[in-house]
Amino acid sequence: MPNKIEFLFDFGSPTAYLAYRRLPGVMERTGAEVEPIPILLGGVFKATGNSPPGAVAAKGRYMGVDMARFAKRHGIRLAMNPDFPINTLTMMRGAAGLQHDPRLIRYMETLFAAMWERPRNLGDPAQLATALEAGGFDAEEIAALSNSDEAKARLKANTEQAVERGVFGAPTFFVGDEMFFGQDRLDYVEETLAG
Amino acid sequence: MPNKIEFLFDFGSPTAYLAYRRLPGVMERTGAEVEPIPILLGGVFKATGNSPPGAVAAKGRYMGVDMARFAKRHGIRLAMNPDFPINTLTMMRGAAGLQHDPRLIRYMETLFAAMWERPRNLGDPAQLATALEAGGFDAEEIAALSNSDEAKARLKANTEQAVERGVFGAPTFFVGDEMFFGQDRLDYVEETLAG
Repeated sequence: MPNKIEFLFDFGSPTAYLAYRRLPGVMERTGAEVEPIPILLGGVFKATGNSPPGAVAAKGRYMGVDMARFAKRHGIRLAMNPDFPINTLTMMRGAAGLQHDPRLIRYMETLFAAMWERPRNLGDPAQLATALEAGGFDAEEIAALSNSDEAKARLKANTEQAVERGVFGAPTFFVGDEMFFGQDRLDYVEETLAG
Repeated sequence: MPNKIEFLFDFGSPTAYLAYRRLPGVMERTGAEVEPIPILLGGVFKATGNSPPGAVAAKGRYMGVDMARFAKRHGIRLAMNPDFPINTLTMMRGAAGLQHDPRLIRYMETLFAAMWERPRNLGDPAQLATALEAGGFDAEEIAALSNSDEAKARLKANTEQAVERGVFGAPTFFVGDEMFFGQDRLDYVEETLAG
């Protein structure tokens, strides 16, 4: 069994954020490494015919309660973003541009926190730039990176490959070929890693 | 906190079956009683705009894997029904007709097992009758009960009340006014009962 978790995420997903906050514990307990793979959730929805939980009003309301219970149990700060849903295309292209850059870790911490702890409307380029600068980034450099053909192509390829592997939402985890969907399946991920 | 779990179910839901198999343990550990409430899942979907997971092919495939993992972890026998989805209207009307009858417990065991352990196409009246007779019921009596105005009205009322309370799928549990969706939230139900 490979000792690696592929973590497919989009900053726009609050459950991806909840999973992100749980990953350090999983790494500590299992010794596994995590490989973050930025995907565009909107692209996954379009390709699979899936839709976000909030598309059904009653489900969206319940999801808020359910995520708050999860956050409370695990001591995670979660503030629902009043501007949700936010277009994450630029942010995710930036993540794809940094995919093989050691700064990806800090980029993820900066933007997950700015989305789901503070929270900010990161669909607004000015607020995104402010958040990035506060996280120690050169916002202009990141904007240029997000706008690069390479970043665009990588995000597109990541998303298409995810769909080919059976992904229909975020967060999704792979341990080898085994797929797990949702922050609430990390215990199964751990079990699989433990063999 | 009330020491009661309302269990809203439809025999057509394999996750409702998984939850059903876990309930005796929950009752034993918490001392809570369970009040089964038959609902028509198709009616809930229609009223809320929700759809079954299998409506998205990739999600349906994953659900099969995910349910098998849950069943394995908890030692539950689960055989996916080859005739799924099955029209459960007659069965659920029968359950509504028996809602305040002590035989409801045996009726649930009989039909959940015939749906998800053996499994049988219970949408076929002849196979339904055979399953009921094997469970010690007079199939003609149950057919008459399912066809009664009272049973029809009760199932309709249960379903409408569920939707009013925020239900969008099955299984759903209530502890007082707190709602929980899914077989994988029974640990939260237990936590709530424990205060």
